[in-house]
This record gives sequence, C-alpha cells and structure tokens, in this order.
Amino acid sequence: MEVRVKILYTSLCHTDVYFWEAKGQTPVFPRIFGHEAGGIIESVGEGVTDVAPGDHVLPVFTGECKECPHCKSAESNMCDLLRINTDRGVMIGDGKSRFSINGKPIYHFVGTSTFSEYTVMHIGCVAKINPEAPLDKVCVLSCGISTGLGATINVAKPPKGSTVAIFGLGAVGLAAAEGARIAGASRIIGVDLNPSRFEEAKKFGCTEFVNPKDHSKPVQQVLADMTNGGVDRSVECTGNINAMIQAFECVHDGWGVAVLVGVPHKDAEFKTHPMNFLNERTLKGTFFGNYKPRTDLPNVVELYMKKELEVEKFITHSVPFSEINKAFDLMAKGEGIRCIIRMQN
Amino acid sequence: MEVRVKILYTSLCHTDVYFWEAKGQTPVFPRIFGHEAGGIIESVGEGVTDVAPGDHVLPVFTGECKECPHCKSAESNMCDLLRINTDRGVMIGDGKSRFSINGKPIYHFVGTSTFSEYTVMHIGCVAKINPEAPLDKVCVLSCGISTGLGATINVAKPPKGSTVAIFGLGAVGLAAAEGARIAGASRIIGVDLNPSRFEEAKKFGCTEFVNPKDHSKPVQQVLADMTNGGVDRSVECTGNINAMIQAFECVHDGWGVAVLVGVPHKDAEFKTHPMNFLNERTLKGTFFGNYKPRTDLPNVVELYMKKELEVEKFITHSVPFSEINKAFDLMAKGEGIRCIIRMQN
Repeated sequence: MEVRVKILYTSLCHTDVYFWEAKGQTPVFPRIFGHEAGGIIESVGEGVTDVAPGDHVLPVFTGECKECPHCKSAESNMCDLLRINTDRGVMIGDGKSRFSINGKPIYHFVGTSTFSEYTVMHIGCVAKINPEAPLDKVCVLSCGISTGLGATINVAKPPKGSTVAIFGLGAVGLAAAEGARIAGASRIIGVDLNPSRFEEAKKFGCTEFVNPKDHSKPVQQVLADMTNGGVDRSVECTGNINAMIQAFECVHDGWGVAVLVGVPHKDAEFKTHPMNFLNERTLKGTFFGNYKPRTDLPNVVELYMKKELEVEKFITHSVPFSEINKAFDLMAKGEGIRCIIRMQN
Repeated sequence: MEVRVKILYTSLCHTDVYFWEAKGQTPVFPRIFGHEAGGIIESVGEGVTDVAPGDHVLPVFTGECKECPHCKSAESNMCDLLRINTDRGVMIGDGKSRFSINGKPIYHFVGTSTFSEYTVMHIGCVAKINPEAPLDKVCVLSCGISTGLGATINVAKPPKGSTVAIFGLGAVGLAAAEGARIAGASRIIGVDLNPSRFEEAKKFGCTEFVNPKDHSKPVQQVLADMTNGGVDRSVECTGNINAMIQAFECVHDGWGVAVLVGVPHKDAEFKTHPMNFLNERTLKGTFFGNYKPRTDLPNVVELYMKKELEVEKFITHSVPFSEINKAFDLMAKGEGIRCIIRMQN
C-alpha cells in the first residue's frame, strides 16, 4: 500500500519549523521534514490500485483509508488509521523507515517527508489530481491553504452577504479570508496584532482590520460595536487561547458560528460563560478544513483551475532546493506567505 | 397589538417556581405566574390582524415580532422586541399592567401570566393553533416540551440510527429523548443522578441509563466506553455546569454535536481543553428548541395531531385551579412530569 513519489515542488509550513525546533515534543532525529508538496508517482507497491506511475499527486500529512468509521462518515476527515501522527517516524505497514544513510535509518515526518527528491508514502496519504494543474502552484494546497479555505467554506459556511471575522492573517488566516471572499461575504474583518499584514490581506478579500492593541475594550466588544451585535461567522487561525475565546464571543447571538483552526498550547483551557452558548451561538473545531484528503483535495485543485480560488497570491517567494535555508529565514522574519522550494533546479 | 385570552388549561413549570421563590432575582410582586397554557382569544386590540375572537392559541413566554433581524433570520428565534424578559412585569406597549386589585397593579410574568381565567398578551407571544387540537393536551407544548423536543429535532439533528445521550430526565430531558425517538435514534442513553426516573424514561425512547454516582470514572469516559469513542449527539437539560462540560466531552470526535438547553447559574464557567473542539466536535446552545413561537409552534401541534409526537405521556396529573398548590407540591417532591391545572372546573 505504498508509493514512491518524485517530489517536484515543496514549500515550508510552520509545522515543519515547529517540529524541527522540537521544543517540548519528543525529538525524532535524524528526520526528513516537509509536507506541503506536489509530485509525480514514480512507482507503486503491492496493493495499490488507485494510482499509477506518472500520475500527478499531492502528498498529505493526514490520510484517508476509506474504511474506518471516520472515513465512512460524511462529516469527519479524522481517519482512524492515517490521522496525523507527529511522533511516528516510520511506515505504518512494517514500522520501518524507507530512508537511510550509511545503513542507519532516517525518520519520516507526518508520512510525507517532502524535502527529498524522492519519498515513500502510504497510498492513503496521496491525493491524485488533475495532471493539467501546475504543480509549482497547487503544491501549496496540500496543507495550510486548504486548512484555512475549508474552515470557512466547509465549516463556517458564511451565507452570501454576511460578515466574517478572521483571527490571524498568516497563510491559514489569509486562506480563510479567501474562503469568505469565494463564499460571497460582504464584510471580511481581519484581526491581527501585526498591522503590516493588513495591506497584503486586502488581496484576500479583507475589507476592514482590527488591531487589538489599538483598543482598550476587549476585541469581541470592538467587533460587536462594528457589526450591530456581532459577526455572523468567525474563524480563529492563531491557536492563541485568548484569541479562541474572543473569536467565539464576537459572533452574533441567535445565529453566529465560530470555527477554531489554530492549534492550542497543550495546557490551554477554553473558558466562557455558558450563556454565550445558550444564546444560540455555535462553536466548532476543524482539522484540515474538514477536507478528506483523497476525496476532496482534487476538487480544491479544480476550484483553482476554474479560477475561483486564486493560488498565485499565496506564493511570494521561490528558491531552488539548495537554498532551502532561505525559506526558513523568510519564515523566521515573518516575510511573505509561501516560499516554493524547487527540487529539480 | 394586544389580545385578551381566556385560559382553559395551564401547567406548572420549574421557571414559575424559580421566580415565585425569587431567590437571587429582583422580586416583582404581586405577580401572576404561569406560562405553559392553552386558551381561546376573547377579544383583540387595535392593530391585531392575525387572530380573531374564538381562535385557539398557546401563550408563549418569548415572542416573535416578525420584523427584527432575529425574526428575519432563518436560524434564530431570539426576537429583539419580545425575547423573554423575566424582570418586566408590565406590557411592552405602555409600560403598564393589565391586572389590578383594589386599584393597585398586579404584575405580569414573562408576558403570559396564565394562572388566571383571563390574561392580556402581546400578539407576538401568541401562537394560533389548529382548533381541532385538544387544549388540555397541547397546552404543555408551549414551553418545556417544545424546548426539549426542538433541542433534539432542530439543533442536535441526530441522524437515523445514531446514538444520543440525554443529560437530565425531567420534563425537558424526556422531551429531548422523545425528539431522539422521533428522529429514529437507535440508542438513547439517559443520564441522571436519580435512578427512579429511568423506568419512566423508557416510555420516551430511552434504551440505556447511566447514573454518574455508579461510576468512579468521569461520565464522559463511561459514555465513550459504551459507544466506541463517544455518542453522536448529546443534549444537556440540567443547567449544571459539570453536566454541560460532560455533555460536550462525551460526543464522538469527527462528528459529535452537543446541545446545551439547561440554564446555568449566573456565575458558572464553561471550561474544556480546546483540542476537544479541534477534534471536530460542535457545541451549540438553544433557546426554546430554536422554535419561532408563532411560525413553528402550530407545526409542533400538528406533529401531535399526526400521532408522531406523543404528548399524553408527559401529563401525569390534573387538578382544578382551586387546587393549584397540589401542582407545586408534586413539583417540590419531584413526582410526575406535568400537572394540568384546569381553569374552568
């Protein structure tokens, strides 16, 4: 059930950096990072029938076995077998690695390890896409962009003409704003502590901005004052627990829906007065934008091919693999959105 | 915009007792309590066009003006103008009471005051129903029963064959179970600290019972063990903050939906780890089962007329108005579900 994929383009996501720094997690080294990517099937192992050599694919950090209760549920994408596992550094089939150096294993990362000219993956973590789609663009759809986009389109589901608040204007938050733009929201309010992001965010549909530092009132009150009682939908993309609470409490009573995307600290505690729920607010969390990797990701690519989803504006930099450290530097400085890493040149 | 209604049947709800005891609330006395009832329009005031003398109606403790953003939203029933207000003891039009004794005003309660042979109400708080419906039965649909029923049918929306946990097996919880039965849930697990309620709850579709006192593990863990990871839906009808947290944490990751119905203590704080949301759980609150009083309540009555909703089993006692104190005694002892108070005999 494994495939070998020739990686053509990959990009750097915060999660790579987070586990590379290995602060607070079990260190699993040596390890090949990378999980946002696009490539071509080089060869397929026993049991693989869905793809063939030459197929264009996106590797995905979480999988879809198509057989567990989660895969069989129309509502879930949290596959029991292939759900993201950041501690596992080996293949699920035999508990071994497919990479080695001088006879010693090099560990995998989230089943993808795309910072490599070739990688081996479980077929359940591979989305076969339209071969017409340019891999140097759609490669960014295999993680953060789809996460934010799906959080809005699949989970928050803002009605046409509604007001949406986006907390955090990094790649995921900008993709959430892009989802609100595609859904036809009339007001998209970006919330971020860094005002330098506001200009860029306009390209993703943001119409207004709130910097919590500019106000003495709590952000949820600032947003309620701007919107006659609260926004219709909010999407939280920072993972900061206070932002999570604000994102929930800023939605309108009666119909407001808040969606949590950002991953919280392990000791975080979500606290609110239960009347905030009783007044008919909804709070939902999402993982990978509720997209089932194999079933749904090809359709996200089609959304780009139909020119509804604009992918180019997420790609601000491009470097050859030999200069991958530049991508790390850009992320450390908070510059740009996505840096494409070209494996072949 | 007012109507005078001849009350034929009314029943006692915990909310009447709570505000009669006036512990912790602003006391508004003298006051006529009562809000679950059925009656007939006696006369209509200026501006009323929806009903005419002789129409059968259910008084409702919360209203529907049909003009505010909440009434215009398909998702909300929390009317800006006529939303429940337990402190107001007067009519909204002129700020005066329509009851008096020896020239001194007697205050209204939640716009209904049905413990009276005649009462005056704002037309927005009156649901016109099928005149064929027996008022001595459907009178109980104007508060608690619809609250529990709607919480399940309108908000939790359990798929056919799913597993539903109900926290609290009082009238509202039993109605929530009835909603799960009507929706075709295959397992309905009643959770209550009082095991004497379990036998009665079987009539409302409950198939299994959990008494948290019987277990050393947290209830959410007991329910997860019983259901291979969690229930599909839960409905919390006690208002106890710990039960609220348990009701949320016991739903299955990936697709579980928890619905809060019970009204919490004013100082309560809902606390949970945000990963419980991120793992694709949903938490929603509801008010009056998300039913719009005037638009939707007539359809709840029709559900009874079509014999889908069984109302009779909620009615365990009946007394003439002169013996209304017996209804208070039964509630204090926790006996029975609903006691009908007959105004005419």
